[in-house]
Amino acid sequence: MSGDAGAAPAGAPPLDAVEIVTIGDELLLGFTIDTNAAHLARALGEAGIRVVRRTTCGDDAGEIAMAVRESIDRTGAVITTGGLGPTSDDNTKSGIAAIFGRAMRLDEGIWERLQEMWKGRGWPGQVPESNKLQAMIPDGATVLANRHGSAPGIWLEDERGRWVAMLPGVPREMKGMLADTLMPRILERAKRGGGAALVIRSRTVRTTAISESALHDLLADVRQSVHGLPLAFLPGWEGVDLRVTARGMPAAEADALLERAVLELRGRIGDPVYGEGADDLASVVIDALRARGWMVAVAESCTGGMLGMRITAVPGSSDVMLGGVIAYRNDVKVRDLNVPQPMLDAHGAVSEEVVRAMANGVRARTSAQVGVAITGVAGPGGGTPEKPVGTVWVCVETPAGAHATRVRTVGDRDEIRRRAAQGALNLVRRQLAR
Amino acid sequence: MSGDAGAAPAGAPPLDAVEIVTIGDELLLGFTIDTNAAHLARALGEAGIRVVRRTTCGDDAGEIAMAVRESIDRTGAVITTGGLGPTSDDNTKSGIAAIFGRAMRLDEGIWERLQEMWKGRGWPGQVPESNKLQAMIPDGATVLANRHGSAPGIWLEDERGRWVAMLPGVPREMKGMLADTLMPRILERAKRGGGAALVIRSRTVRTTAISESALHDLLADVRQSVHGLPLAFLPGWEGVDLRVTARGMPAAEADALLERAVLELRGRIGDPVYGEGADDLASVVIDALRARGWMVAVAESCTGGMLGMRITAVPGSSDVMLGGVIAYRNDVKVRDLNVPQPMLDAHGAVSEEVVRAMANGVRARTSAQVGVAITGVAGPGGGTPEKPVGTVWVCVETPAGAHATRVRTVGDRDEIRRRAAQGALNLVRRQLAR
Repeated sequence: MSGDAGAAPAGAPPLDAVEIVTIGDELLLGFTIDTNAAHLARALGEAGIRVVRRTTCGDDAGEIAMAVRESIDRTGAVITTGGLGPTSDDNTKSGIAAIFGRAMRLDEGIWERLQEMWKGRGWPGQVPESNKLQAMIPDGATVLANRHGSAPGIWLEDERGRWVAMLPGVPREMKGMLADTLMPRILERAKRGGGAALVIRSRTVRTTAISESALHDLLADVRQSVHGLPLAFLPGWEGVDLRVTARGMPAAEADALLERAVLELRGRIGDPVYGEGADDLASVVIDALRARGWMVAVAESCTGGMLGMRITAVPGSSDVMLGGVIAYRNDVKVRDLNVPQPMLDAHGAVSEEVVRAMANGVRARTSAQVGVAITGVAGPGGGTPEKPVGTVWVCVETPAGAHATRVRTVGDRDEIRRRAAQGALNLVRRQLAR
Repeated sequence: MSGDAGAAPAGAPPLDAVEIVTIGDELLLGFTIDTNAAHLARALGEAGIRVVRRTTCGDDAGEIAMAVRESIDRTGAVITTGGLGPTSDDNTKSGIAAIFGRAMRLDEGIWERLQEMWKGRGWPGQVPESNKLQAMIPDGATVLANRHGSAPGIWLEDERGRWVAMLPGVPREMKGMLADTLMPRILERAKRGGGAALVIRSRTVRTTAISESALHDLLADVRQSVHGLPLAFLPGWEGVDLRVTARGMPAAEADALLERAVLELRGRIGDPVYGEGADDLASVVIDALRARGWMVAVAESCTGGMLGMRITAVPGSSDVMLGGVIAYRNDVKVRDLNVPQPMLDAHGAVSEEVVRAMANGVRARTSAQVGVAITGVAGPGGGTPEKPVGTVWVCVETPAGAHATRVRTVGDRDEIRRRAAQGALNLVRRQLAR
């Protein structure tokens, strides 16, 4: 280890904003999606540090130096990811060292650790000279330990308190190092500056089976802001998520306002709200089944197993999930679900009659209290004027009776199937809520 | 419509490099992952246009103007996404107009189209005044038509031939407008400049059921480059993809070198290669089944329907897919697949004996020539010292006999299930290739 223990130079500006520079040809050329920048931005925002600009450049040392120099000149606080590995295109450290007018030197601590890792893995011979680059750091830099990989991070700072923190590009290593080492250091700086008590926090309310325009109407007078917090409508195949965000206020105030806003939204929207944050509708349904002590079985045509997959994706789903039948072709519907062939002939496989028969059939052949069925036209072929692509029927049969409904679906084959499975889960949720 | 039809001013510099600026608080704060930038970069690279820098800024008009101005000063050719919608935070157009010293004016064509769309959707009353912002464009700008949404794109250029193209932020709209309108215009500029014959192209060979380290050994002497092209190893749950990239050369030369490199990789790796590019293993298996005129049925325990979902995700899969049984709980395995209860008691549900009985059972109860079964411990609970989390058996039974194997799986519940389904599909592929 080398350098200081995290103290800022006297007279350094208070920390309230940073820029992010993500480095790598893979990112710049679009071969890799940049998830690191989003993770960093969220983590910093949660802690009250504003991200004011993000930049991506390639592996060229000149480009890296130019991009980082511009960020330093604008904001004085820069986090980079990428360009710290053993390969020859890793020009980050030397490019940034040059900005600060520092030479590169071998760090004995890193070099010893690399040699130990090499031996520990049972690899033959000595560490190749090319890997020695990983142990080179700018003069006066502080090493940020990496418990999750071989490339350490680096903190470099000038006499005016302007700094660059270099993190590795592998997301797992970057996230670990951010949490372990860099964030505590940044928070210390922010506290000292007296500025960073102001956070950015958000909460998300999840709705399904209600259109964005219907939500707009329900929320007409709070569409711009709920208790002063801006509201974002985020439509997706699972439904429309509503996100409220509190910015530039102390954490306690943000949390209190968010709580009020979420209660307001839940109260106005009512039934279509199935959860918050990362809640999955399958988990909500499983909890409701478990509360009743009921088992479920599925009968799937156009979704081909997707509903079963979603239910069984939840750990512990075997408490409530028996299994089911993938009745993709009609002969399976007849043989395994007792759907009458004349019914198929008269109404077609995509019909209320058949979806009811499927739910009844899978419930009858198992000991499940709840039978769920899906049949639809997922496309791209198979549509007719009466039953266009996107026509989907779902049915839930419980000891209290059967309920069938058509699901609103739009989009391509994948999206139609996802919306169909989501619609079936939502019908279970609603029947269990009665 | 207004402005020129795409001709560059006399004396404009040749086009060979662009910058991308993606705009929006959602992106900057990390709430949304930036997929637009990657899509743009790949499309431009394929066409031989280098992306030299990517920048993300928030919705603040001053920030937008500063970021775009810097990009124009560096590179003279800038594509922006985002900030063109009807909401009040859409400051892109006016911010960029200010850089070029242009006033904003109402475009009658866009305004009429907005009014038509409003009526066409049967919405009541007149288009709100707030939507009029969408029809405002910088003086002298060219409108880029949007067939996929309401916000048109804008092309703005100065007398020196420096330009900014503004695209909407909705990925579907952005992609459509890029392909329809912007890319032809950019290619025209590049051709005129005489510079853009040098492309960046890549091809990807997909492998499964072979480890990254085994591939490293097989490819030891071409690991750094195959026929002069750099080789990237991209491991994922489907297997390891190998990408070769040709850069900075004419298209014909790139294509020829890539073809040689792909043949070299296919020859060295052999059986584990199941496809190229975006090929999905389920499609490969469906084609092989169709070629034989065989039908398939599935029996799934730990994957709970994921294998059926993957097969039926492919349009036209009903040619070869009957359906199957989701045998999540053991009583379903016994009742619907004729797995003997004593076998379950003696060997456990996750065993070679049971997976063979499942494949046999689903084949016997259907008219399918091919039965595929999966049973495993997906975790996080349920592991034992003998059968730890990640233990997965798959079996394929065909008229030629049955073949069972253990699948290498690592990772969390989701990843284990994905690898299990992929392993089962691969076993079908291998059995059909005999």
